[in-house]
Amino acid sequence: MKIARVIGSVTGAIKDGRLVGQKLLLVDIVDASGAVLNPSQVITDTCGAGVGDMVLLASGSAARISPETSGAPTDETAVMLVDEITVNNQLTYQANSG
Amino acid sequence: MKIARVIGSVTGAIKDGRLVGQKLLLVDIVDASGAVLNPSQVITDTCGAGVGDMVLLASGSAARISPETSGAPTDETAVMLVDEITVNNQLTYQANSG
Amino acid sequence: MKIARVIGSVTGAIKDGRLVGQKLLLVDIVDASGAVLNPSQVITDTCGAGVGDMVLLASGSAARISPETSGAPTDETAVMLVDEITVNNQLTYQANSG
Amino acid sequence: MKIARVIGSVTGAIKDGRLVGQKLLLVDIVDASGAVLNPSQVITDTCGAGVGDMVLLASGSAARISPETSGAPTDETAVMLVDEITVNNQLTYQANSG
Amino acid sequence: MKIARVIGSVTGAIKDGRLVGQKLLLVDIVDASGAVLNPSQVITDTCGAGVGDMVLLASGSAARISPETSGAPTDETAVMLVDEITVNNQLTYQANSG
Repeated sequence: MKIARVIGSVTGAIKDGRLVGQKLLLVDIVDASGAVLNPSQVITDTCGAGVGDMVLLASGSAARISPETSGAPTDETAVMLVDEITVNNQLTYQANSG
Repeated sequence: MKIARVIGSVTGAIKDGRLVGQKLLLVDIVDASGAVLNPSQVITDTCGAGVGDMVLLASGSAARISPETSGAPTDETAVMLVDEITVNNQLTYQANSG
Repeated sequence: MKIARVIGSVTGAIKDGRLVGQKLLLVDIVDASGAVLNPSQVITDTCGAGVGDMVLLASGSAARISPETSGAPTDETAVMLVDEITVNNQLTYQANSG
Repeated sequence: MKIARVIGSVTGAIKDGRLVGQKLLLVDIVDASGAVLNPSQVITDTCGAGVGDMVLLASGSAARISPETSGAPTDETAVMLVDEITVNNQLTYQANSG
Repeated sequence: MKIARVIGSVTGAIKDGRLVGQKLLLVDIVDASGAVLNPSQVITDTCGAGVGDMVLLASGSAARISPETSGAPTDETAVMLVDEITVNNQLTYQANSG
């Protein structure tokens, strides 16, 4: 799985009917320090993520295991809101608790 | 999923019978600002996309979920025409409404 | 899907029995202008392609949808001989009609 | 499959219910000499791996074959703790036996 | 599929039970001239390959089609020992017949 930062969203009126009702988030895949590895992925979401959140992405058929995305033509889904990242027993990322 | 810009098409007479009747579009995968990330992908389409359109691509088995592509030997399909891309609450792309 | 140019072939006597009778072509994945993007892929073929031909590749489970490759341990198959590539309404590639 | 070094972990309270109880490890994919090839992958684990361990990763649907990960929305799982890596009949990596 | 050169092996005592009895080979993915494209992949094997052999790799679910690897959590398997590679009708690789 990948770590990604939510940076925006993508919308469209003409689409596969199985995408209706799916919020499509724009994310950058990042490393543990937040540096961008792969920009501009579009994902479905099962966690209520918003701009600025760090999320965990499941790709391929794993993106369609959750009931929220089952049957939708998606290949990448946020399956967790990241609260903390720890590297070598040091906390390197912590979500705002505000 | 990926954002892609439609730049052309590919045709051939000798092909798998399950591709007959599928329009095969040539696209470049782009980032949210339109810069090319991966050129020259060929896709099937469920949205009636044409040259200049921005589309959302589903890859792998997700490309064959729509009834239009089910059973076809495709690994990448346009599942939405992109109308708007928003980054950090700023509109960065808007399809021509002409 | 990807565009690829057939450059050769690969053979071997000791192999999975489900590959017996499959011609294994060596291809380079190319962009719409023919420049190499990823060299030296090996593919199964459903189109009778030969050296010099441009083909369309289906990857992953899409490579095993055709009856010719169903059940074979392949992850990449030529599903169309490319006759023409059009970019921005200009013909950029045309197969020899000889 | 890939070789990876465990460098940390990722946690979150809001997630797909099928990830509850799964420890999510942060790893770097490395080559046989330990140099990083792809940083910051997040994986599920079937081996009880911890920081500093070298593990073998299975990706895609292979990540969900083990009973520990079956049904979870994961695309990458540690399926072995690496004890030894041998290159050209020379031992190049050996896990601490402490 | 990919061409790869076997360079070593990887072992471990703690692993998924479905990997018991599988020899895990270390390979570099190479191009048709033998230059390394992607180092340090770990594969299962259906061909009895050893160090120095050139093999053909099937990835993803194709890696689990052979009865030897069916049910194992592997995503990459050697499905052929490469005897000859031909580029533009010139023999560019031939396995030692010793």
